[in-house]
Amino acid sequence: MSDLPQTNQTDTSDEPGREAHLDYVQDVRDAVWDRDTRWLARLLARLHPADAADLLEQLSGDDFAACVDLLGGQLPTSIIIELRDEYREEAVEVLPDDAVAAVLGELDSDDVTTILEDLEETRRERILDELAPEDRASLEQGFAYEEETAGRLMQREYFAAPEFWTVGHTIDHAREHADDLPAEFFEVYVIDPAHKLKGQVPLATLLRTPRDINLSDIMEEVESDIRVEMDQEEAAYQFQKYSLASAPVTDDNGRLIGMLTVDDVVDVIQEENTEDLLALSGVNAADGSDTVLDSVKSRAPWLAVNLVTAFIASAIIAIFEGVLDQVVQLAILMPVVAALGGNAGSQGLAVAVRAIAEREMEGDAGRRAILRETLTGLANGVIFAIGVGIIAFAWFRSPELSLTISVAMFATFIWAGFSGIVVPLTLKRAGADPAVASSVFVLTLTDIMAFFSFLGLATLILV
Amino acid sequence: MSDLPQTNQTDTSDEPGREAHLDYVQDVRDAVWDRDTRWLARLLARLHPADAADLLEQLSGDDFAACVDLLGGQLPTSIIIELRDEYREEAVEVLPDDAVAAVLGELDSDDVTTILEDLEETRRERILDELAPEDRASLEQGFAYEEETAGRLMQREYFAAPEFWTVGHTIDHAREHADDLPAEFFEVYVIDPAHKLKGQVPLATLLRTPRDINLSDIMEEVESDIRVEMDQEEAAYQFQKYSLASAPVTDDNGRLIGMLTVDDVVDVIQEENTEDLLALSGVNAADGSDTVLDSVKSRAPWLAVNLVTAFIASAIIAIFEGVLDQVVQLAILMPVVAALGGNAGSQGLAVAVRAIAEREMEGDAGRRAILRETLTGLANGVIFAIGVGIIAFAWFRSPELSLTISVAMFATFIWAGFSGIVVPLTLKRAGADPAVASSVFVLTLTDIMAFFSFLGLATLILV
Repeated sequence: MSDLPQTNQTDTSDEPGREAHLDYVQDVRDAVWDRDTRWLARLLARLHPADAADLLEQLSGDDFAACVDLLGGQLPTSIIIELRDEYREEAVEVLPDDAVAAVLGELDSDDVTTILEDLEETRRERILDELAPEDRASLEQGFAYEEETAGRLMQREYFAAPEFWTVGHTIDHAREHADDLPAEFFEVYVIDPAHKLKGQVPLATLLRTPRDINLSDIMEEVESDIRVEMDQEEAAYQFQKYSLASAPVTDDNGRLIGMLTVDDVVDVIQEENTEDLLALSGVNAADGSDTVLDSVKSRAPWLAVNLVTAFIASAIIAIFEGVLDQVVQLAILMPVVAALGGNAGSQGLAVAVRAIAEREMEGDAGRRAILRETLTGLANGVIFAIGVGIIAFAWFRSPELSLTISVAMFATFIWAGFSGIVVPLTLKRAGADPAVASSVFVLTLTDIMAFFSFLGLATLILV
Repeated sequence: MSDLPQTNQTDTSDEPGREAHLDYVQDVRDAVWDRDTRWLARLLARLHPADAADLLEQLSGDDFAACVDLLGGQLPTSIIIELRDEYREEAVEVLPDDAVAAVLGELDSDDVTTILEDLEETRRERILDELAPEDRASLEQGFAYEEETAGRLMQREYFAAPEFWTVGHTIDHAREHADDLPAEFFEVYVIDPAHKLKGQVPLATLLRTPRDINLSDIMEEVESDIRVEMDQEEAAYQFQKYSLASAPVTDDNGRLIGMLTVDDVVDVIQEENTEDLLALSGVNAADGSDTVLDSVKSRAPWLAVNLVTAFIASAIIAIFEGVLDQVVQLAILMPVVAALGGNAGSQGLAVAVRAIAEREMEGDAGRRAILRETLTGLANGVIFAIGVGIIAFAWFRSPELSLTISVAMFATFIWAGFSGIVVPLTLKRAGADPAVASSVFVLTLTDIMAFFSFLGLATLILV
């Protein structure tokens, strides 16, 4: 999203500092309430677009809509594209069609795709209809690729040159066609006459090489291999692996068709991380601007699943109604076994989900991890079986009860360690996202083990 | 870590594909077992350093050590620096002093700091002593800054030029001093005679500008403001906010002293995300190569805390021993209230921790979030109070028991929603990491509420 041309601003004297931005919020709010468009526009113009976007996001929902409505086409494109998804969607909704069309004309193709994605289909058609056919075709191209693929994420602007060009010719060409180049790029891609990608020349290399050297003599091999239809997560993985700032995107025939830049990839990495973290806690999606209804929608489904599994655990307890009726201490201690076992399972699960996401679980590593997690469960099982046993004995002075809870604790820990790794690995192998359903499975499995072993043993030992 | 010069390899005919790397593992293993150093070196040389590092990480611990030992100084620096932390530490441990010293000489300063951090202090001193005093001083400089600061992360190599230089002069200078420039950079930093940072010129801008234009006419304001002593997390936040590929690092007087590149920042982002995800599940740290002992050490402390909180919950149950003794169904249903309440609390907590990490909780947003989470708890509370009540009635045919569990469920949900957001916000305000201890607090609070409300109401209604 950083592909916007920067204004050349050398006088920074009235650039407010980081803390001052907060005072600005009140100024902006006042400007909105007074419907003072000029003041509002001037306030926003003083800030970096990213800071201005931050500031607008601090406004209440109503003030934000009023502000966008007030500015209309005067709301700078550079700010719109820096807004967080839900604010950007809101802004695009409030803006008139011609303002949106104007915005589209100013942006690089990856940002155009982002804005078009925000629009309702009928409105998208209407806005695209207003444009010249060739502009329309080029704007719609990003939509040819599936969501969450490299093709959707990439921009179609890049700087490519044939192998036989010299450094000098390449620089001269860039100067003559300055306006056709993307605002930001870090490499020159070297292509053959069929537009096949042959290599790349980092700008730093171009800069330090004498004018008469051919690009073919200084080009590097492109180590990444990012195809248009590739999942964006895979592309992000290659950026991390090869420490890239940008990378070419090719079609199946190896022809260059676009460029990915690291700022978009960083957003993908953050999204994936957020998804994993939320999924592990049973939340489908979340955002700072979610309404109560959004929150309920994203959480109730997993609570409903948990409702079922909780009653399954209850059914296990019900089997042992007899022993519970005789020994009330079992009801008091029962949640300890379940809580500790569940905690141990969640720990292993978090480690496993993380390791799978970072591709540390491939090949033999998976088998080693199962062994390690089970042994960790065994070791922690010994420690906490003893600990729980001692506390239970100090409390109830019953060696049988202590023995019962110790053995149950031990069994539950081993089981928790084993299921904490096997459940996500199995889901992964089945092609599911290991972060999504693992938590419910693992906690249900440990609950069942906890109640079954504790109450079952109690039936054998105490009655 | 990508600052290594790349070899100029245009013939890719014997570059193996992604899948072929897995077959390579066996070849490398054979080479290690046969102690065939030449074959081993050739196998590794054929791969991109990042792929070679991946491959070595697939070996068992013993084979990996044997491989490093075998290669010694022949193990390419570029591979060492691509290894994951724990493997790199292991490699540096196995390598002889002179090989490590040679490695240091080849690296950019940020990578030097990484390697020096891995060494035990006595060995570090010994290796540094072998070097010429001026090299030593420069290598040690990275250590002047605290861990996890921008100073530690940055490299001291960058390309700076005075304002009055023309584009042409800058390019000529780069050609003449090609060897002094960092391997990779994306901007020329413009400085005044006191070495104060005045602006920056992206290489893409430099490339498209005629030779006779002054840098001062094309330079942009540096929007980021990264100081040496700044926390690396804050630096990473600025990279994301301003969509940077690299950024200058200054001291308190605004003088340029180093450069951060996005690949290092991406690693920081991943680390922070991993920490949050693991901390939420009560794991201090984890790695694919952890031993059972490492795992136990990183998990037992939080299990010990949970042991205490679980017995606190038990103590709450023990208060109601009388009613439990009379109505065994309470023992059967009790875990349902605790499980669902705990789940609702974890959901809110995950959303809150994420929002805090992404700085969406500043100012009014925090208050709004508390209201939203409490209302979400209320809404889900109504839904699941009814659901649980119906299932309990279908099972036990007791309207009083159904009413008891419904009301307890409702109270627990509201409480879970409230504590799921207030606990992390409070920890954050107290300067603690909201991800670390929140989970234990929230689950303990919901357990206490669940047991207290369910059994307390049962005492009032059922007895």
